[in-house]
Amino acid sequence: METTGVGLIGFGTVGSGVAEILLTERDAIAKRAGVRLELKAIADKDVRSRRPVKVGRGLLTTKVDRILDDPTIGIVIELVGGVEPARTFILRALERGKDVVTANKALLALHGAELCAKAAEAGVSLSFEASCAGGIPIIAALRDSFVANRIESICGILNGTANYILTRITQGGIDYATALAEAQALGYAEADPTLDVEGIDSAHKIAILARLGFGADFAFDRVSVSGISGIDAMDIRYADEFGYTVKLLAVAKRHARDVELRVHPTLLPRSHPLASVNESFNGVCVTGHAVGDTMLYGRGAGRMPTASAVVADVVDAALGRARTTFSHFAALSGRVRSSRIRSADRVETRFYLRFTVIDTPGVLARIAGILAKQKISIASVVQKEAEEGKPVPVVMMTHDATEGRMWRALREVDRLAVVKAPTVALRVEG
Amino acid sequence: METTGVGLIGFGTVGSGVAEILLTERDAIAKRAGVRLELKAIADKDVRSRRPVKVGRGLLTTKVDRILDDPTIGIVIELVGGVEPARTFILRALERGKDVVTANKALLALHGAELCAKAAEAGVSLSFEASCAGGIPIIAALRDSFVANRIESICGILNGTANYILTRITQGGIDYATALAEAQALGYAEADPTLDVEGIDSAHKIAILARLGFGADFAFDRVSVSGISGIDAMDIRYADEFGYTVKLLAVAKRHARDVELRVHPTLLPRSHPLASVNESFNGVCVTGHAVGDTMLYGRGAGRMPTASAVVADVVDAALGRARTTFSHFAALSGRVRSSRIRSADRVETRFYLRFTVIDTPGVLARIAGILAKQKISIASVVQKEAEEGKPVPVVMMTHDATEGRMWRALREVDRLAVVKAPTVALRVEG
Repeated sequence: METTGVGLIGFGTVGSGVAEILLTERDAIAKRAGVRLELKAIADKDVRSRRPVKVGRGLLTTKVDRILDDPTIGIVIELVGGVEPARTFILRALERGKDVVTANKALLALHGAELCAKAAEAGVSLSFEASCAGGIPIIAALRDSFVANRIESICGILNGTANYILTRITQGGIDYATALAEAQALGYAEADPTLDVEGIDSAHKIAILARLGFGADFAFDRVSVSGISGIDAMDIRYADEFGYTVKLLAVAKRHARDVELRVHPTLLPRSHPLASVNESFNGVCVTGHAVGDTMLYGRGAGRMPTASAVVADVVDAALGRARTTFSHFAALSGRVRSSRIRSADRVETRFYLRFTVIDTPGVLARIAGILAKQKISIASVVQKEAEEGKPVPVVMMTHDATEGRMWRALREVDRLAVVKAPTVALRVEG
Repeated sequence: METTGVGLIGFGTVGSGVAEILLTERDAIAKRAGVRLELKAIADKDVRSRRPVKVGRGLLTTKVDRILDDPTIGIVIELVGGVEPARTFILRALERGKDVVTANKALLALHGAELCAKAAEAGVSLSFEASCAGGIPIIAALRDSFVANRIESICGILNGTANYILTRITQGGIDYATALAEAQALGYAEADPTLDVEGIDSAHKIAILARLGFGADFAFDRVSVSGISGIDAMDIRYADEFGYTVKLLAVAKRHARDVELRVHPTLLPRSHPLASVNESFNGVCVTGHAVGDTMLYGRGAGRMPTASAVVADVVDAALGRARTTFSHFAALSGRVRSSRIRSADRVETRFYLRFTVIDTPGVLARIAGILAKQKISIASVVQKEAEEGKPVPVVMMTHDATEGRMWRALREVDRLAVVKAPTVALRVEG
């Protein structure tokens, strides 16, 4: 059995999980998959802190070049994260004829085409299963298992931190700030949670999945993104009364002339497979013309689930399958056509609306009139009892409407004297 | 771009779906995956009936040899089903150096080791993603995506017919016979539904998945199987009151010295990911030591979902990846160790019990006493109000108990004069 040398750049949480699998499961993997992986070196700025895995002193280095210059290392794992210096490390590894495995979603979302083109040019492979949804094999599914399909849509809960917070608000009846603090205390959310709670991380991931699933490239800065930091627990409760669960959903849909790519808090009917994806779990629904509706579910982050995906890619590269895949698939060649992202105001969905109004005769009629003028039709409406003179919430579900029409209507509604707070509008899917 | 010739044996429902994809998606697949698949011949006993896809007259033949003898055909798809003549067709195709793709779960469950050994000997590949859970990529996940994991358990709803019937009983409040008739009218169940409703089809599939996931072989006839034909709608209602959903579950668990392999109606807590797999959908949960809990969900049968999986295997074979996989993975070599299946009476789970008793003082004490003698401890119990002198159902959830102890206890309970019908016992998982 041949041995493949592996170099690891980045010895953080996931890196330590990868090292643990490569060291403790080496013989098991060799027996199972017929390839022997040998971890030759681990590069990190910090080689002194204790990690949850014991590695020989000789493996550790602060010099990335020790990995890049080692001709016995055939596969380089990049787990540094962020754009630079990760981008440079990967480009240099590819140039030197090494297969590269990465979990770096930000880098792939922003520079994926460049990296793929470089790998194609060098005749090697770039694998990134761990970049989206941790241990869930969504990349392999989209690329290989659903290869016979025209992929119509990809919708996912792709950020475990945001999903944990929403789950706690929903099930614990607490507010956003309390849920965030709890997630931070448990290590699910970072001190600066912006990337996770504002939907940026989810946007990176859905861009990667859409590029692969639709075989097209996009301008990442056109992805429409809104996060959960502004979410009011009241809307989660009302959504529940209508039979819906609120999730931070990343949505990619293919149309004849353009694609939808967006991330936003979304109402899902309770019967939707993603509605019961709770806590820090991730779930991705893919619809293909042949396979129909599918969902993949699992841990979307964390040390060992992500390491599981990284090592699967390493085995794939060691077997030589990754190069075969990479040299054949158009979506990986870096030569895919550019596709236009549909502007948010032309995207059509149903909406959940919450108006805050003084309950006087004719209020509902005036709101309904404004909506009707924008051709927005009402599916159902609930108005709560209230003390006289106090504002009351009026909650409404609409039929399909474009965001453009909706914003025009809500601007007019919010100018009414009886409307006492900006109207809340959330999209509904499924 | 090279062209790979493909021959199809079996032009039934799935076969017509495969032909449709190969004919209408040929250019799209070539563009997407860099391989051109050319359907060269379709063999079937019946070449006259109308199919939902138009194929040139010249493609159709009643002679399988036209496919097996054609040197331009590199990949043979077997969709005949059943053991013979499918087994002979596959063996002959493998001997002639052709890669084979099959959806034949019964054949693989009973003769998988023989077929794998033959493929290994011939230096070709045998692929069978479509044999389990239709369009759901569970084979690829177990084999490739979770390759870094010691797989601990595989639990699935693997039969869409049985799941449709159980869903209708649960949601429609109808009885088994009515639900079966409905499934037959809709084409979800065959005139003779035995394989589906008695759990045999699910047992075939879990045996295939366990062989792959655990890297071991089993004596299929030791798999413990019970179906849903004896299910009483009353138990589904009571399970619901306890917060459980009844599913026909196929379970594979790995232990140090043996494995559990069993199929039976099972109570799952409503929060379990499989509990919301409804209608004719399938779902499979896999737990690995690194990846943790995962689930894959989708259409487990049907023309196009199954064809989607078949064509994915064909692309994999055409790219040459299938041969690489096949020649490296121990579980596919036909040379895996034999593993013992734990006998059903030693398998430990929680149980749902329904006793039918005359409500006289001391009845519950006597039943509890018999259970205690077998060291079975009671988690909760509900007794319904009843008319005097009429038997009443007493419903009980137990803590973990072996089936052996449970059967001994229930034999004794059912001999009591106050017990008026055989006690119903269902396993609880999750």
